[in-house]
Amino acid sequence: MFAAESMVRTLINQGVDLCFTNPGTSEMHMVAALDRVEGMKSVLCLFEGVATGAADGYGRMAGKPACTLLHLGPGLANGLANLHNARRAFSPVLNIVGDHAINHRPLDAPLTSDVEAVCAPMSRWAGSVTSSSEVSSMAVEAVKQAYGPERGVASLVLPADCAWSNEEPDVLPKAEMPGLRPISDKTVQNAAEALKSAKNPILYIGGTACLEDGLQAAGRVSEKLKCRLVMETFAPRISRGAGRVSPVRLNYFAEQAAEDLKDCDLLLIAGSKPPVSFFAYPGVPSELTPEGAKVVHLGGPADDITTALGALAEMLGAPKAPTLAPRGYAPEITNPDEPLNPGYAGLSLLRHMPENSVICDDATTSGMGIYPWLDNGPNHEWLCLTGGAIGMGMPLSVGAAFAAPDQQVFALCGDGAAAYTLQALWTQAREKQNIINVVFANHSYMVLNFELARVGAGEPGPAAQAMLDLSNPKMDWVKLSEGFGVPAVRASTVGQFDEALQAALKAGGPQLIVAEI
Amino acid sequence: MFAAESMVRTLINQGVDLCFTNPGTSEMHMVAALDRVEGMKSVLCLFEGVATGAADGYGRMAGKPACTLLHLGPGLANGLANLHNARRAFSPVLNIVGDHAINHRPLDAPLTSDVEAVCAPMSRWAGSVTSSSEVSSMAVEAVKQAYGPERGVASLVLPADCAWSNEEPDVLPKAEMPGLRPISDKTVQNAAEALKSAKNPILYIGGTACLEDGLQAAGRVSEKLKCRLVMETFAPRISRGAGRVSPVRLNYFAEQAAEDLKDCDLLLIAGSKPPVSFFAYPGVPSELTPEGAKVVHLGGPADDITTALGALAEMLGAPKAPTLAPRGYAPEITNPDEPLNPGYAGLSLLRHMPENSVICDDATTSGMGIYPWLDNGPNHEWLCLTGGAIGMGMPLSVGAAFAAPDQQVFALCGDGAAAYTLQALWTQAREKQNIINVVFANHSYMVLNFELARVGAGEPGPAAQAMLDLSNPKMDWVKLSEGFGVPAVRASTVGQFDEALQAALKAGGPQLIVAEI
Repeated sequence: MFAAESMVRTLINQGVDLCFTNPGTSEMHMVAALDRVEGMKSVLCLFEGVATGAADGYGRMAGKPACTLLHLGPGLANGLANLHNARRAFSPVLNIVGDHAINHRPLDAPLTSDVEAVCAPMSRWAGSVTSSSEVSSMAVEAVKQAYGPERGVASLVLPADCAWSNEEPDVLPKAEMPGLRPISDKTVQNAAEALKSAKNPILYIGGTACLEDGLQAAGRVSEKLKCRLVMETFAPRISRGAGRVSPVRLNYFAEQAAEDLKDCDLLLIAGSKPPVSFFAYPGVPSELTPEGAKVVHLGGPADDITTALGALAEMLGAPKAPTLAPRGYAPEITNPDEPLNPGYAGLSLLRHMPENSVICDDATTSGMGIYPWLDNGPNHEWLCLTGGAIGMGMPLSVGAAFAAPDQQVFALCGDGAAAYTLQALWTQAREKQNIINVVFANHSYMVLNFELARVGAGEPGPAAQAMLDLSNPKMDWVKLSEGFGVPAVRASTVGQFDEALQAALKAGGPQLIVAEI
Repeated sequence: MFAAESMVRTLINQGVDLCFTNPGTSEMHMVAALDRVEGMKSVLCLFEGVATGAADGYGRMAGKPACTLLHLGPGLANGLANLHNARRAFSPVLNIVGDHAINHRPLDAPLTSDVEAVCAPMSRWAGSVTSSSEVSSMAVEAVKQAYGPERGVASLVLPADCAWSNEEPDVLPKAEMPGLRPISDKTVQNAAEALKSAKNPILYIGGTACLEDGLQAAGRVSEKLKCRLVMETFAPRISRGAGRVSPVRLNYFAEQAAEDLKDCDLLLIAGSKPPVSFFAYPGVPSELTPEGAKVVHLGGPADDITTALGALAEMLGAPKAPTLAPRGYAPEITNPDEPLNPGYAGLSLLRHMPENSVICDDATTSGMGIYPWLDNGPNHEWLCLTGGAIGMGMPLSVGAAFAAPDQQVFALCGDGAAAYTLQALWTQAREKQNIINVVFANHSYMVLNFELARVGAGEPGPAAQAMLDLSNPKMDWVKLSEGFGVPAVRASTVGQFDEALQAALKAGGPQLIVAEI
C-alpha cells in the first residue's frame, strides 16, 4: 500500500472518476494506484494536449472535473494550450502533474523544471504536495479549487516520493464543493432599473447564461423590453436548436462586432464581461462597448447568473415563455454535384443530426459558416474555442463523449487546427467513441488570409503567403485518420457530404469525414 | 515600413537567417517583414513543437541560433517541451513569441496570458519588448543571451504594436557575441594534480567535450593515465565513428550507471556536472558519484572545456594522438528472414550509412540497442534526447538538415515518441529534406515496462498495463507518414530493413521506415 492509493480513493469520494493520462516513470505509483483501486477509469492519450482538451470537454458537459495525470514539466507543457482553453471556458479540471521526488529536484536531472511555475499561467489555482501526509487533503483542496466559485483549472503537483510513500494518509470523505455565488436582489433590481431607463439597451450574455435555462430567462427579458439579446462570441457551451432562445452571437471581426452593438446606450453584462476584440489592430479601438454607452454588471462567470436572470424576468413582468422561431428543416438536396462549402455541411447536419448532439467547434472560418444553419434544428450543445488555442476540437470531443456517452458527438475542425492534436483520433478508436470528426480541408490557415489584410501589413508577397498555405504538400486526412485507427472518407460535393454523414451516423463509433472545400 | 522590418534586418546582421514558425494574427507584421526583407528563410511548421525542436537541431549542428516565431502563450506552450530539450542541450535558440498589443493585454481577450511567465521555466533568458524603439536593441540582446556564455534558449516577447509601429528604430550592425569562458591554467593544473594523485580516477565528460576535438583531448588524457573515460548519458551531440575516441556512455538505469562508476576515487568533471540518476527510485540514492570519491571540476557547459582538455593533455605529457580501435564493418547478412530488432537496425546503419551522417535519437530503448554498433563505423554526429521530453526526433532532424544540407540526417524514433510530433514529417516533405525517419514500432511505451517494475509499485494489473500499451489500436505509420507527404515502407525482418534503408538512401528526400520490432 502506498500514499497514491489514498489520493485516488479520496478523489473518487469527491466524484472524480475519470483520468486522462500520459504517464511516465514519476507517475508509476499513481498508475499502480489507479490499477488497484476500483472506481476511476484511466484513458490513455498519445499526447498531453489530448488529455487536457478531453478534460475540458468532460468538464463542460458533465459540470464536474475529470483529472489528468501528466509527466513533469514537459508533459504538462504539451497540455498547456488546451488548459488555456479550459481556463477560458471556466471548465472544472483537476490537472495532476507528477514531479521528481522532492530530494531529487535540486540535483537538476534532465527532466527537472519548475513544474508549479509551468502550471501557473494556465491555472486558476496551482499547488504542490510537499509530503505524503498531504496527498488526500491537497487532493480535496484542488478539487474544491476546480469548482470555484469561478470554475477552472486546478493544478496539483505530486512529487513521486509523496505518491510512493508507505505512510498512507487517511482517505477523506466527500467534501462540500463551492457553488456559483448568489446574486443579490439589489443587484438584480439595479439591473432592472437600468434596463427600464435605457432607450436602446443590450442584454449581453455569456458563460452559464448560454445554457438552456439562462437563455430562456434572458429571452424573456429581451422580449419584454424589446431589447437586443447578444451573446459573447466564444461561450464555453451554447444550448441550441428548436425551442431554445437564440441570441445574436457577437461577430468575431471587430468591425462587424461594432455593428452588432451599434447605437446601444446600455450594456447589461450577464455572465461575462464587456466585449473586447479578439486581437488588436492598428488604429482600431479594442474595447467594443459603444462610446457613451453605460455598462451595468449583473454578474460574471463566478455568479449564479441563471437564477438572477430568472429573477430579473419576473421583476420586469416578462412573459412566462419567450416566443420562439418554428423548427427549421433543411430542404432536400437538388444540387448533389455542387462543390461543398461549410454552409452545405451545416445543412446536412440540420438534416441528419440526432437530437441532443454535442458539437465541438474548432473550425474557425468553416465553423462560422455552419453555425447559423443549426439555429432552429435538432437540439444540441455547441462548444466554442474559448481561448483561441487551435487544436481543441478532437480532444474536446473525447471528453464530451465520456460525459455524454448516449449522445452523438461531432468534432468540427479546420485542417490547420486538426493537425495540432490529431493523436486524439487514436483515443477515440481505442475507446470506441461515438464521434464524427469533420475536417474542413481548405489547405490554408484561412482566417489569417483575412487577418493579414486587416492588420494593414500591406500586400502579402510569396514568402508571406507561403506561411498561411497548407497545400504544399496537401495533407491526406483519410490516411492520417486511418493511421490512428479511425475510418475515414472524403467528400467534395454537396451530395457526397450528405451521404458520408448518413453513413457515419449509421456506422457508429469514431468516423472522420474530410470535407474538401 | 514598420518596426518589425528593423528587427528582421538587425537579426540578419547577427547571423540569424532562419525562422521556424507557426504565426497568427499578432505576428502578421513579422510575417510581412520576413516577406519584404531578403536574407531570412521562413519555414512553416504545423505545430510549434516542431518549430522549437527544429531550432534546437539547427543550434546543435550550426553552433548558432535560428529563431522561432510563435503565436502568444498557447503557441509558445506547444513549443515548450522541445525548448526544454534545447535548454538542456545548451543549444543557442532565439525564441520569438508574438503577444497582443500592449494596450490590448489588460482587456484579457481570449488569447491573453502572461507570455513571459510561460517562457521563463524553459528559457535561460526571457525578456519583453516594451516599445517599438527597443525592437532592434532587444533583438541583439536576445541573440547575445542565446550565445551565453552558457548557450541556451533566449525568449523574446514581441507585442504586436511594437512590431507594427511606423516609428522604425535603427537597424543595428553585427554585435560581438559571448563565447565560452576560458578556463584558467590554475584550474587545469589542479585537475592534473588531482588526476595524478588519484588511484582510480574517472574523467567524466559532457557538453562540448563530446565533440571531435574535446574527445581527442580527453582520449589522450585517459590513455596517458590509463584511467576510465566516461561520458554523460545524454550529451547534446557526440562525434562518433572510426577515428574518434569513444568513451563509455554512462548507462541510463541507475544500477548499471553505478557499475560504470564503481570503485573510482576521483571524478574529474569536464563540460558537465556530477552524474545523477534520471529518475528517483524508492530507497536508491539519486547521486551517482561513488561514496568517498572526490569530485574536481575542470569546467561546465559555459566553459571552453575543449581547450582546457588539450592543455591538460599537454601538461600530463599525453601522447599526441590516442590509440583508436580499427574501423568496424558489419558482416554480410546471412539471416535475412530473421525478425528485426534494434541491434540489426544498427548493423544496417553500419553497413550503409554515409560518412558524416547526423543521427537524431528519440528512440529510448531502441536507440540504446543501436548506439553501440556504430562505434567505429562511418563518422557521424549523434544527437541525444537531452531533456527527456520525447517527441524531439523528427523536429530535431528538420533543423539539423537545414544546418547540414549536404549530410544525410536520420531521425530514430520510438513509436510513442514519434506520435508526439509527427507533424514534422509535413515540413520535411515541404522542404524536401534528406531525412530518413525510422519509427521503431514496438507498440508500447517500452521503457515504462522496465520502470514500472523498478519503482517497486508491485505487479501491474490490466489497467496499469493498458497505460503502457500502444497496440489497441496499432498505429499504421505507413499511412501516417504518407498522410503528411513522406513516402514510407514497413520492415519486419533483417533483410527487409536492410533493403528499405538502401532504397531510402538511394531515393533521397524524406523517407520513413517502419521498423516492426
